[in-house]
Amino acid sequence: MTIKLHCFGESGNSYKAALALELSGLEWESVFVDFFGGAARSPDYRAKNVMGEAPMLEDGDFRLTQSGAIQQWITDQTGRFGGSVEDKYEVLRWVLWDNHKLSSPAGMTRFLMNFLPEDKRPADVIAFTQGRLKAAYQTLDTHLAGRDWIVGDDLTNADLSCCGYLFYPEPFGFDRKDWANIDRWLSNLEQTPGWKHPYDLMPGNPSDRA
Amino acid sequence: MTIKLHCFGESGNSYKAALALELSGLEWESVFVDFFGGAARSPDYRAKNVMGEAPMLEDGDFRLTQSGAIQQWITDQTGRFGGSVEDKYEVLRWVLWDNHKLSSPAGMTRFLMNFLPEDKRPADVIAFTQGRLKAAYQTLDTHLAGRDWIVGDDLTNADLSCCGYLFYPEPFGFDRKDWANIDRWLSNLEQTPGWKHPYDLMPGNPSDRA
Repeated sequence: MTIKLHCFGESGNSYKAALALELSGLEWESVFVDFFGGAARSPDYRAKNVMGEAPMLEDGDFRLTQSGAIQQWITDQTGRFGGSVEDKYEVLRWVLWDNHKLSSPAGMTRFLMNFLPEDKRPADVIAFTQGRLKAAYQTLDTHLAGRDWIVGDDLTNADLSCCGYLFYPEPFGFDRKDWANIDRWLSNLEQTPGWKHPYDLMPGNPSDRA
Repeated sequence: MTIKLHCFGESGNSYKAALALELSGLEWESVFVDFFGGAARSPDYRAKNVMGEAPMLEDGDFRLTQSGAIQQWITDQTGRFGGSVEDKYEVLRWVLWDNHKLSSPAGMTRFLMNFLPEDKRPADVIAFTQGRLKAAYQTLDTHLAGRDWIVGDDLTNADLSCCGYLFYPEPFGFDRKDWANIDRWLSNLEQTPGWKHPYDLMPGNPSDRA
């Protein structure tokens, strides 16, 4: 049975799981979550995932949410992206850092700046989260100095997590030209065979709602 | 050599690691991080942890940060708190959810409401993050209906992560009396042999700076 990933194009958290699936070589297919139509808040969806979020993976009767947990499952299935044995904790700590300090505020700020009606965008909140994000970009850029990948010598879940929101075109206060090491690292990802942009990998994008 | 945890009492993220160490039976000692004096931003500290955060664990030459990664290391060392084999992903997804949706905004909101000078507290940001937190409390409370622990029948890292900020006395928009299932679950934690309150487990608390 083909693995199903419930996801939508605008979701960087979905992208982390979709890109890991795509690059791993596993057979998978996307199932569109009409997030902006409220699908993730529906009783049916909540019954499957109390967190009310995308992505959600289904493999037969097995069901899993949270992009970082899905990435670990893909690693366990395929042996890919987990890094070397001695780097196991280093990969995990960057996945956690991303969830805490990078993707969480990036996804929220991008939502507030682009997907809310213009008269509902909270300027003070956006300015505050952009300040916190800038500190996160600085941490990642400093770490990537002299490195091709976040952990070790190859692509790992650390990279597949931290890049989650960084390829999107909608403005949220991130310009890769401002961060030379992040820019170079994102190019390494783009040049990885099989890499796809989020809007080419998952169903749904802002033009559907224009 | 005794395990060292660099931490400070006000840090719920430090508490997650300190409580896991304390309950695991490992020998450990705390090393005070003068966070409010800027210690975590110092070049020396940044050289050891580019993320500039507490907690940081040191075991001889081994060094690790991010509470969720430290918890996994403790589980690997002791066999404790990882849950059953089949619950491995379920524990991880709640640790990630906590980092993303619960502890991250809880820690920030508590900081803004209590540890910033009164005239610097951003009311709009606080109101916004309290709204997001309320949705997180609802998710956790719904999940805990009929359950003693977040995953399976015993205390796991999912509990040790999600409780990180929920025992603190400083207001940040959480009152356990409003959430019957969370309240019952926190009592289960408090009744676990060896449990300690964050200010009893780690050095430093707000009265030091009063």
